[in-house]
Amino acid sequence: MKKHNFSAGPCILPQEVMQKAAEAVVELDGIGLSLIEISHRSKEFVGIMEKARSLALELLGLEGKGYQALFLQGGASMQFLMSAYNLLEKKAGYINTGTWSLKAIKEARLVGEIIEVASSQDQNFNYIPKGYSIPNDLDYLHLTSNNTIFGTQLKEFPKTNVPLVCDMSSDIFSRQLDFSKFDLIYAGAQKNMGPAGTTLVVVKEDILGKVSRKVPSMLDYAVHAGKDSMFNTPPVFAVYVSMLTMQWLKDLGGIAAIEEINERKANLIYSEIELNPIFSGFAAKEDRSIMNATFNITDDSLKEIFDEKCKEAGINGLNGHRSVGGYRASMYNALPLESVGVLVDIMSDLEKKG
Amino acid sequence: MKKHNFSAGPCILPQEVMQKAAEAVVELDGIGLSLIEISHRSKEFVGIMEKARSLALELLGLEGKGYQALFLQGGASMQFLMSAYNLLEKKAGYINTGTWSLKAIKEARLVGEIIEVASSQDQNFNYIPKGYSIPNDLDYLHLTSNNTIFGTQLKEFPKTNVPLVCDMSSDIFSRQLDFSKFDLIYAGAQKNMGPAGTTLVVVKEDILGKVSRKVPSMLDYAVHAGKDSMFNTPPVFAVYVSMLTMQWLKDLGGIAAIEEINERKANLIYSEIELNPIFSGFAAKEDRSIMNATFNITDDSLKEIFDEKCKEAGINGLNGHRSVGGYRASMYNALPLESVGVLVDIMSDLEKKG
Ligand SMILES: Cc1ncc(COP(=O)(O)O)c(C=O)c1O
Ligand SMILES: Cc1ncc(COP(=O)(O)O)c(C=O)c1O
Ligand SMILES: [Mg+2]
Ligand SMILES: [Mg+2]
Ligand SMILES: [Mg+2]
Ligand SMILES: [Mg+2]
Repeated sequence: MKKHNFSAGPCILPQEVMQKAAEAVVELDGIGLSLIEISHRSKEFVGIMEKARSLALELLGLEGKGYQALFLQGGASMQFLMSAYNLLEKKAGYINTGTWSLKAIKEARLVGEIIEVASSQDQNFNYIPKGYSIPNDLDYLHLTSNNTIFGTQLKEFPKTNVPLVCDMSSDIFSRQLDFSKFDLIYAGAQKNMGPAGTTLVVVKEDILGKVSRKVPSMLDYAVHAGKDSMFNTPPVFAVYVSMLTMQWLKDLGGIAAIEEINERKANLIYSEIELNPIFSGFAAKEDRSIMNATFNITDDSLKEIFDEKCKEAGINGLNGHRSVGGYRASMYNALPLESVGVLVDIMSDLEKKG
Repeated sequence: MKKHNFSAGPCILPQEVMQKAAEAVVELDGIGLSLIEISHRSKEFVGIMEKARSLALELLGLEGKGYQALFLQGGASMQFLMSAYNLLEKKAGYINTGTWSLKAIKEARLVGEIIEVASSQDQNFNYIPKGYSIPNDLDYLHLTSNNTIFGTQLKEFPKTNVPLVCDMSSDIFSRQLDFSKFDLIYAGAQKNMGPAGTTLVVVKEDILGKVSRKVPSMLDYAVHAGKDSMFNTPPVFAVYVSMLTMQWLKDLGGIAAIEEINERKANLIYSEIELNPIFSGFAAKEDRSIMNATFNITDDSLKEIFDEKCKEAGINGLNGHRSVGGYRASMYNALPLESVGVLVDIMSDLEKKG
């Protein structure tokens, strides 16, 4: 049965990418060897890494603007620590939009002074804080562009002279932004970019080298940048599949093209959530994520039948995160509009019959 | 053309493992979804992780002995740092057998006092130091069981009351040892265990929690152990393929069975290197690695023809590391005896014709 994969991450990737990835595990590009058995210093893999790095900058419109793209290990969680290690000398500010921001704050507190510039904790993170003022003396301001768990997303970014650091794990490559406003962007691959196992770090070179501490090699962006993201053995498969996925996106027309499709998917589900009395959205309307739609069922007696219908239709990964409950439809780049259609049909059928 | 893959890592994996891995990238075990698009919290992946963790302990004979097996990101290079972060309170000792030990020492020095208990730097690391005495007041003694670059291997491990930490990246699962003598073992997957992208850490629980520093979450073995190696999104593909490779080894008869094959491969090449005047071994005879055979060509005028013959025969990855030069035949678990035979035939033909 065809599946409709709404998983929050790891998540759906383009079918043709998975197909090509499988072929490369058997044999890479006719070289007589598998992708996963060649040296990372081979010309084949060096080419893959370079292509991945340049595609990332190209898609973000950051080529020739003083940025380096790195593909590291450790997940976005390692970036909570690394960003602070590399950039925090005295004091940094964080916008707290939920779980991921909180984890980032926790790790950064081991490194230096952290102030919470704004928070939406008072309403269980169902909105994005606005209208706060940003102190001038921060080493950086840390944002989470999209909160995967609560389904909230920053639509506008603060204007400030303070360097901006942004965790874009769950909405990288999904919408057009002026990415040159950010000094450091990081994103675990396992939503819009590829399989789990690598993390994209896009760092503006001129913000590096300003902290006085000795940074361990593996935590040092300058070390990784100096070795073209090959300081040690990279996660070969994850980088390759990320490269394929970025190439797929480029061929599709890049971020501008996918943004349109993403908006159509989001509009489809949010208008159903709004119009249908059986469902109610979790996030404040103006802050709703186009990637993760969080919603609840208003009539508990219909939960069982809704779950059953979803299962019958091949819908996967719709459960909300344990800290919010309810449902979460994650609609990353590779999720077809059709899948959202299938879900929305079940939702509206339920109302008609209910 | 059939390839004979002597790559030092990433390196050859069992053919059937690569085949099964490729299938799983298309669809995992008939579930209608790819391995790389399912949630790491799905019952399928949780099962894979648990199987990988228990296979690791089983193969090492460490089940029920107070050890935890973790599959982390970052490579063995991250373990240079993590081992020190978690275990170094005042002073640790290192046996310096070359590049990898030196890198481990460099990172640990950021954390505390390090003494080099013994070193073979005086002869460009072509032997393993012996007969040194180990201070009693060390937090741990760090060893590199096999030096991948120089082709040296520890045949005996020091008897000491000091906790033993061992980087087994390039010989894990290749030979029988009493693994319960070690308090911490780590190994990048990309030689005997799987593809690049995950690192096995086997840690004795009772050595944790003894340092006074605050360890960042991602660098804390106790945090990862407390979450069954799922503190954050694990490198799904690399863990899965490692699990398959360990299962392959178990089915073959475990470490005892592969050790016999590994010894036959090593004997085959080392006797050729010895008998054949055109080639000379790099490492001291008693310290020669059964995984990585390093050797030189004694007659430079034959280099071109040797390289050409190797190429014609489909031999891949035979160049020595830039810091040693010459040749290196890496003969990890999955390399068939036949491949060593092909190489040895070329070597001996060269002598006959030479
Ligand atoms: C916004 C955000 N940040 C960070 C993370 C943590 O990523 P990882 O599991 O790769 O450490 C996630 C995971 O879902 C996320 O959604
Ligand atoms: C013995 C040894 N230790 C450590 C490493 C570093 O491993 P990684 O590249 O995964 O950081 C290697 C790499 O080949 C190695 O052979
Ligand atoms: Mg957040
Ligand atoms: Mg409604
Ligand atoms: Mg060494
Ligand atoms: Mg000889």
